[in-house]
Amino acid sequence: MKLYAGCFLKMEASLPTPTILMLRPRSGGGQFVLSEEYIMEPHVAVSEYTDSYGNFCQRLIIPSGTFSIKTRTCVETIDEIDVDFSAELVPAEDIPEEILSFLLPSRYCQSDLLGHMALEIVEGYPQGYEQVEAIRAWIRKNIVYEYGTSDVSTSALDTARTRTGVCRDFSHLGISLCRSLNIPARMVVGYLYDLKPMDLHAWFEAYLGGRWYIFDATQEKPVGKRISIAYGRDAADVALATHFGLVNLLEMNVWANDTPQE
Amino acid sequence: MKLYAGCFLKMEASLPTPTILMLRPRSGGGQFVLSEEYIMEPHVAVSEYTDSYGNFCQRLIIPSGTFSIKTRTCVETIDEIDVDFSAELVPAEDIPEEILSFLLPSRYCQSDLLGHMALEIVEGYPQGYEQVEAIRAWIRKNIVYEYGTSDVSTSALDTARTRTGVCRDFSHLGISLCRSLNIPARMVVGYLYDLKPMDLHAWFEAYLGGRWYIFDATQEKPVGKRISIAYGRDAADVALATHFGLVNLLEMNVWANDTPQE
Amino acid sequence: MKLYAGCFLKMEASLPTPTILMLRPRSGGGQFVLSEEYIMEPHVAVSEYTDSYGNFCQRLIIPSGTFSIKTRTCVETIDEIDVDFSAELVPAEDIPEEILSFLLPSRYCQSDLLGHMALEIVEGYPQGYEQVEAIRAWIRKNIVYEYGTSDVSTSALDTARTRTGVCRDFSHLGISLCRSLNIPARMVVGYLYDLKPMDLHAWFEAYLGGRWYIFDATQEKPVGKRISIAYGRDAADVALATHFGLVNLLEMNVWANDTPQE
Amino acid sequence: MKLYAGCFLKMEASLPTPTILMLRPRSGGGQFVLSEEYIMEPHVAVSEYTDSYGNFCQRLIIPSGTFSIKTRTCVETIDEIDVDFSAELVPAEDIPEEILSFLLPSRYCQSDLLGHMALEIVEGYPQGYEQVEAIRAWIRKNIVYEYGTSDVSTSALDTARTRTGVCRDFSHLGISLCRSLNIPARMVVGYLYDLKPMDLHAWFEAYLGGRWYIFDATQEKPVGKRISIAYGRDAADVALATHFGLVNLLEMNVWANDTPQE
Repeated sequence: MKLYAGCFLKMEASLPTPTILMLRPRSGGGQFVLSEEYIMEPHVAVSEYTDSYGNFCQRLIIPSGTFSIKTRTCVETIDEIDVDFSAELVPAEDIPEEILSFLLPSRYCQSDLLGHMALEIVEGYPQGYEQVEAIRAWIRKNIVYEYGTSDVSTSALDTARTRTGVCRDFSHLGISLCRSLNIPARMVVGYLYDLKPMDLHAWFEAYLGGRWYIFDATQEKPVGKRISIAYGRDAADVALATHFGLVNLLEMNVWANDTPQE
Repeated sequence: MKLYAGCFLKMEASLPTPTILMLRPRSGGGQFVLSEEYIMEPHVAVSEYTDSYGNFCQRLIIPSGTFSIKTRTCVETIDEIDVDFSAELVPAEDIPEEILSFLLPSRYCQSDLLGHMALEIVEGYPQGYEQVEAIRAWIRKNIVYEYGTSDVSTSALDTARTRTGVCRDFSHLGISLCRSLNIPARMVVGYLYDLKPMDLHAWFEAYLGGRWYIFDATQEKPVGKRISIAYGRDAADVALATHFGLVNLLEMNVWANDTPQE
Repeated sequence: MKLYAGCFLKMEASLPTPTILMLRPRSGGGQFVLSEEYIMEPHVAVSEYTDSYGNFCQRLIIPSGTFSIKTRTCVETIDEIDVDFSAELVPAEDIPEEILSFLLPSRYCQSDLLGHMALEIVEGYPQGYEQVEAIRAWIRKNIVYEYGTSDVSTSALDTARTRTGVCRDFSHLGISLCRSLNIPARMVVGYLYDLKPMDLHAWFEAYLGGRWYIFDATQEKPVGKRISIAYGRDAADVALATHFGLVNLLEMNVWANDTPQE
Repeated sequence: MKLYAGCFLKMEASLPTPTILMLRPRSGGGQFVLSEEYIMEPHVAVSEYTDSYGNFCQRLIIPSGTFSIKTRTCVETIDEIDVDFSAELVPAEDIPEEILSFLLPSRYCQSDLLGHMALEIVEGYPQGYEQVEAIRAWIRKNIVYEYGTSDVSTSALDTARTRTGVCRDFSHLGISLCRSLNIPARMVVGYLYDLKPMDLHAWFEAYLGGRWYIFDATQEKPVGKRISIAYGRDAADVALATHFGLVNLLEMNVWANDTPQE
């Protein structure tokens, strides 16, 4: 389908503030950018680069006063994500070199400490896709989705204990459990059609049978209609805005519809 | 200024034809993409990747029958290109590693054979920017701009002999002469505002004083209002369309204006 | 000086075990590899690749039975590491793109949680090298070097609390404190001449004044005579051996001398 | 087999001369470096980097006076190169992105002009490995191997006309003919065991059936016992020494034996 998505950010800074944004999706992996727009008010100089995960990063200095950004995109995306219960575990010796780093523990994904939990969850499931789906289903069933129970410092280890969190925490836990079983896993942030309440979203992908598969522990069914904006080891790599200084977010609006929005 | 540019390509193929296109500009180096659009008719699956020069490449299979692509973009670009007669030659030992390959001869730029010509042209000019400007001015003065006198196999060596060609040939000669003096130089293709007759354009950049400077031997003055689409060693790296099979171009339309075009 | 270093590892596996090793130093950053040797007994097929930090990784399957590796190298290294109290903090907007990821928190370096501690330690010191040296000196003075008080899951946050650890923990704490002040910092593992007891060593580097500087909180003085083997965000990136299965280390020997060793 | 190879270069420069060398083989693609040595006399500062093809490049300033380099290596290499007449042509749409640039014409390989010649040579041969072997056999039969008939500016187009050349020219012609048939091909320089007269050698590789295969038009049989030092589009990318100034080569010695050499 054609998914029309975007976001509007209105900020206020008292001093010029160096900032890195990741707000521009790119084509690849099941999505093709048909159009996009990136408007700043006031317009400032931006340098754009690609980080080591292939994400577009916009680097700018937010001026003092109010500053807003509006990005809009129309992406050809898939309606249903691929589901393949026969996708096999890739043996460690066959994992491509550039995928290996997604096996390592990271800031919010202490996979080195969650091996026992993972083994309990996947007990009885055949290796591969079925294990990851078991993890996803377990999280959906056992972790309570609730705003305000976690924050930017919350890690998978915390979530395993508190059993509550939001999409970001669900993803971190899923990623950690996969990695502890030597299944490469990564974080994705982006848009999901018809998400309620509408917001930016996070999910994870696992590398099985030679490719990445999408898993979303916040959803009942394997829905597509997603736009990926950024990939990384965990939330540390995919912050949509990193400010080196104090910036107040005055307003934030996110949308992902089947028709264009003004 | 805000430059509105784009192109429309209508093609016809009797068999499905694998194709690589470079039609999407990216932000960086003095330009910021405010909006863009990439519409195919009919829509086909596209995978997009970044080549080793950082160019966006769209890979698709053109279906049999007629097929069209329309790309449109609005780019914040600079009105005047930077001119700095004091920009110095970067000594060979200080050229950054990733720039070194732009010193090597390439398919259309036999810099290894044009050293004598370069030395004659720059005689009396101080090393650095002034030498490159002398090369540019010499080409502008001595090479006749004329359609139909060169083709896709024409190289700088040919142009040095025939003294005639188009923007692509002017660029290849400029690049070759620079490289023969150990000045890194690269090819750029893109849009130029108000070019007559309107078409896609080519120019070159030389690496001086630690950065790239634009040179355009087809122009009287150092005009900006350009959108870069692709960079490379020479035309071999920056073909806007590479077909692996037979595709007829039925129609092609290019524009680069100060107002949007339908 | 010419530093002769190496290690001998004897392992035992009951099943063939996929393994990734980082045991081959490379030239660069103040060291040049004059000679090296990498001998396995028995010899098995190895594929070698470069990870995203530029480290050499050897990928192999350790056969069942006993298996040993002996690496030896002779490296031209610097006697004294560079110390420059005038090296300045690089403002966030000027940090090169490829360095930015060394500002992020990572598995063992929760810089997002250690900002208050860092601010207390550097209070009164001018920004830049002096702050990092203040951090290094603080760690040397306040963290007790003691084997057996930490393990592979110990993070900077743990060390900040227990105030005890080994070179790895000292490095993680130093890195975290730097990053919390927006100073890029990375982990290094390698050899240090005359280390007592001799073992592989870890230290950290901070990015100041446009280059990396070495800091070693385990040492009294800024000694050089080091061979870097691997760089990364923290210990997760630079494990000298990663086994996907059970391998017993029967024997390990490390040396770093001013004369060759048999 | 264990192949012991190396080279000794003695040079003389009247001025300090910036230089780039490619004299250090690396593990990968059927070879594993068991040991190596890189000794300069006098020793000078060297920075080593990896170019975009993965080759090690040593960058240094050759001092005025005499300067010598001795490199020695012992490499575990394969005795027989792989031959697979069933290896298929990879359709253009399936060629991996990072391989695509090996389809483009380059300085010494004007594949865009040699299509007719290629089609004549491979007429009657099935697509894939058999075509490349037909090209190799045709070159071996029809091009005369003779020193002094070509130089550093000789291209495949020249060789197609003069029908004479050395290993470098044989490779350029083979590469060009392959590329004109949409078969990715690249240049390799390195050591060949028992080559007579002993010298550095050049051959080419073609990408078939999802991997690279070695072809050597100078040899009767598909011999292995090779050490690759550098890969590239053509000779422009793999020069073993690039001097930015005047350096006289006083002495050069190359060896590749089954026993170590002093």
